[in-house]
Amino acid sequence: MEQYHNVKIEKIETLYKANWLQLNKISFTDSKNKIRSWESVDRTTKKGDTDGVDIIAIVNKDSQRHLICVLQFRAPIGKLSLEFPAGLVDGDESAEVSANRELLEETGYTSKSVCHVSPTPMSLEPGLSSANTRYVIINVKEELLQPQQHLEENELIEVLLIPLDSNIADRLNKIAIERNCQISSQLYAFALGLSFQTIFS
Amino acid sequence: MEQYHNVKIEKIETLYKANWLQLNKISFTDSKNKIRSWESVDRTTKKGDTDGVDIIAIVNKDSQRHLICVLQFRAPIGKLSLEFPAGLVDGDESAEVSANRELLEETGYTSKSVCHVSPTPMSLEPGLSSANTRYVIINVKEELLQPQQHLEENELIEVLLIPLDSNIADRLNKIAIERNCQISSQLYAFALGLSFQTIFS
Repeated sequence: MEQYHNVKIEKIETLYKANWLQLNKISFTDSKNKIRSWESVDRTTKKGDTDGVDIIAIVNKDSQRHLICVLQFRAPIGKLSLEFPAGLVDGDESAEVSANRELLEETGYTSKSVCHVSPTPMSLEPGLSSANTRYVIINVKEELLQPQQHLEENELIEVLLIPLDSNIADRLNKIAIERNCQISSQLYAFALGLSFQTIFS
Repeated sequence: MEQYHNVKIEKIETLYKANWLQLNKISFTDSKNKIRSWESVDRTTKKGDTDGVDIIAIVNKDSQRHLICVLQFRAPIGKLSLEFPAGLVDGDESAEVSANRELLEETGYTSKSVCHVSPTPMSLEPGLSSANTRYVIINVKEELLQPQQHLEENELIEVLLIPLDSNIADRLNKIAIERNCQISSQLYAFALGLSFQTIFS
């Protein structure tokens, strides 16, 4: 069955290389032995096999589990974006080290334990880009009264604690309206998984 | 609080326009009134507010619920990709119409009922691209013995039915090794949501 998908990349041509992104034209021979072409974008910053990490961080507050989310302006979508805390992997650090660093920087929260690191990088949009992420699930220390972010001078990241229950997809949709923000597909897919028994009929 | 994020896009410059993608340089005034720039990529195909749909399709087989996934070569990652059935929205069709069409084309399965359509488009990677998707959860008619795909001449999409239970993240990781494929971040996040009570400790 594997052979059925036999495909061979023939050539990757750089159409434009900017500072952070480059646009490519890929030529490949498809499984029917036909030459095809495809456009794609790569990050220029990748060092290892992983571009970044997405952090699913859980903290107890008022005797209930909450998911730690971040709200920030994202220029590519031209509006506020509600996401998991996330960031690019620095140099050759591991996904776990990267996730602990980014969680502290973006939210001020620190890890009690790491419950899961995805064993392989996951593609963010495989029809468009090679960019990928690893998920790290972190059990956060009990809520601090005033967690201190460690942001860079030009960063502005707002931290939102969202109750983690089977209504989470609804809660996200309400926040999207109230704050005029766009929800990331990763965060919403996770919420749909958590809410699945309630939604699916 | 909203004002706190006050940001203004000043200029969007096209660095390169290809057939399907275009690379941009965005200049914006950040919340501290400082001019910043950012690189991004847009699809050239978007007509409305939504680029595409991701379909969470559930079918009964052997008295158990299964998630319908697709495996195909994706040139931007240079390997096989395991994803939700998905596709670009055609013209001005709704997300629901688009999802029903794509599900039939890619998998041969048809809908019994639509359980959920995400009310807004969700960003795929908001730090890189404006590309977005809407999720559509579909309850599929009882399993057909031989569902007939309706693929275009140059498409090759393999359909995988994956048991939908709290071991689904593990199952995906095993398939990634066995088939040497990359899992999409949307599919894996959904699996982590479904598996959450098992993984989180």
